[in-house]
Amino acid sequence: MKKHIYIYSPSSAVRDKAAFKRGLKRLKTLGYEVEVDEAALATHQRFAGDDEVRLAAIHRAASSGADVALISRGGYGLTRILPAIDYKAVAKAIAGGMQFVGFSDFTAFQMALLAKTGAVTWAGPSLGEDFGADGGADDIMEACFDDLITGQGEGSGWKLPKPAINSIAVGLDSASATAINAAYSINNAVLWGGNLAMLASLVGTPYLPAVKDGILFIEDVGEHPYRIERMLAQLLQAGILSQQKAIIFGQFSRYKLVPHDKGYKLASVVSWMQTQVSAKVLTGLPFGHVATKVLLPVGQSVTLAVEGRDAFFLWGHLH
Amino acid sequence: MKKHIYIYSPSSAVRDKAAFKRGLKRLKTLGYEVEVDEAALATHQRFAGDDEVRLAAIHRAASSGADVALISRGGYGLTRILPAIDYKAVAKAIAGGMQFVGFSDFTAFQMALLAKTGAVTWAGPSLGEDFGADGGADDIMEACFDDLITGQGEGSGWKLPKPAINSIAVGLDSASATAINAAYSINNAVLWGGNLAMLASLVGTPYLPAVKDGILFIEDVGEHPYRIERMLAQLLQAGILSQQKAIIFGQFSRYKLVPHDKGYKLASVVSWMQTQVSAKVLTGLPFGHVATKVLLPVGQSVTLAVEGRDAFFLWGHLH
Repeated sequence: MKKHIYIYSPSSAVRDKAAFKRGLKRLKTLGYEVEVDEAALATHQRFAGDDEVRLAAIHRAASSGADVALISRGGYGLTRILPAIDYKAVAKAIAGGMQFVGFSDFTAFQMALLAKTGAVTWAGPSLGEDFGADGGADDIMEACFDDLITGQGEGSGWKLPKPAINSIAVGLDSASATAINAAYSINNAVLWGGNLAMLASLVGTPYLPAVKDGILFIEDVGEHPYRIERMLAQLLQAGILSQQKAIIFGQFSRYKLVPHDKGYKLASVVSWMQTQVSAKVLTGLPFGHVATKVLLPVGQSVTLAVEGRDAFFLWGHLH
Repeated sequence: MKKHIYIYSPSSAVRDKAAFKRGLKRLKTLGYEVEVDEAALATHQRFAGDDEVRLAAIHRAASSGADVALISRGGYGLTRILPAIDYKAVAKAIAGGMQFVGFSDFTAFQMALLAKTGAVTWAGPSLGEDFGADGGADDIMEACFDDLITGQGEGSGWKLPKPAINSIAVGLDSASATAINAAYSINNAVLWGGNLAMLASLVGTPYLPAVKDGILFIEDVGEHPYRIERMLAQLLQAGILSQQKAIIFGQFSRYKLVPHDKGYKLASVVSWMQTQVSAKVLTGLPFGHVATKVLLPVGQSVTLAVEGRDAFFLWGHLH
């Protein structure tokens, strides 16, 4: 039986209709049955329908019986409807085997759901930006998505950047650098995170889960490193980072350094972070506003294994 | 005896040296004695010196014995040094009659000081952007600054925008609009606030004061209305806005609306805000990243009086 994917729009209005159509076509080509929510192309101001319309779309997705609910796109819009989402209905759908997948603005939904119910969702692609990408969908993203939908996936790995930012940037000598890169693993830690701006915007609200001894991953787009640092400082000063065993930088894309940065850059933020926490700080995770993205189970207990430049998340069979 | 102004740089490096010099000259022309901190023009990456240098500058300002400590400029830099500021030393200087003045990134300092000590500071100009403005300093700003430094000021007022956003935008009929604009006052409420991005970035940390029954004012620069809304949603969902008696929009400048906003704009955010809180929501406060700015005592108990289109803050003689 064909796997069933439900497409809905909880955030910004779909503007790139061509990408939307390409995405639908690609999913069908991959052999999936695709159902499109009645309000997937709705528009109200910059939103995909007004608050009631987007809430109804989320709740229709939850009751659709699909294998995967996939967002059409991110943008902005979930924040303002967080208080009105029926989290229990979503968690019930997930308990029944449904998977919710998305990223960017969708991080708000994932965090709120995790905080309210503990249900696991997937940080992963959107329809338009990923399956409908102009040059074709990314192979790795599609393989990860297939792993999820067929229940075959047991983990995901990536190469740590070279030279390892976590040894060189803080000025350690080569002996210390070797020590840092020795093999280690972090077992049974809750993986969580997503878009950093969304995470920061939930601090102090009931919609950010209190994850202890977790592994936090972050990504963002169009944010200058000083703003990334300011958001991390909020997580730090709110006591969130000190409770994590690892902090993993995904992809930070489409920002512009300026002449008066005078050497201040993303690596400066990573170095500063390393002086502020005892957690492992890793970089290079292929996740964010980029084509090549892995899928990550948000709220799931995982093992992080690092050996040399190889890093792996292991979560076993989840369904 | 001449009033004594101490200029220091707690945030970004001074880049516009001409504005810095014009500012010094203008303050001297106004009859003030001006002292420049030894690190006022220091540079480390994008900062006005590294963290230690900026911390030392703040502490030198506090022990300078000046009448006013005035920031050279805002930018970014206070967030990361908040844990290391000697708030007691600053509060002691203020108890001795010194005033700390600034805005933008300086909001982080003001909030942290208020949270830690209850000391009152002033939301007001910076040296370069205001006294050193290319076309000359703004008359109203200078008059307010003189009120502060001579101890003559007892309050500040402004004209509410017409048509009143708080009646029209939410679609009230004219009878209701009249009711909203009837005279009222809010007495003995703590005035607080400043730059919205800084306020939002402090939620959940020990550096945001817990102000109950207060009057919150906000401003920002270069932030699209959807980002302003997201920051306000954080304050709302963190339970902060429901504890305020009034929320006052200052100036939000230098952002760009885009075609796909399709009518979504700052007024949409104000309207949404009005549906979310029982507090009075006012607009048009002349404060922000604009030339004409009043000075406002942050942490001070004030009276807000509104009659028709006239709004006034009254705080009496403060020193």
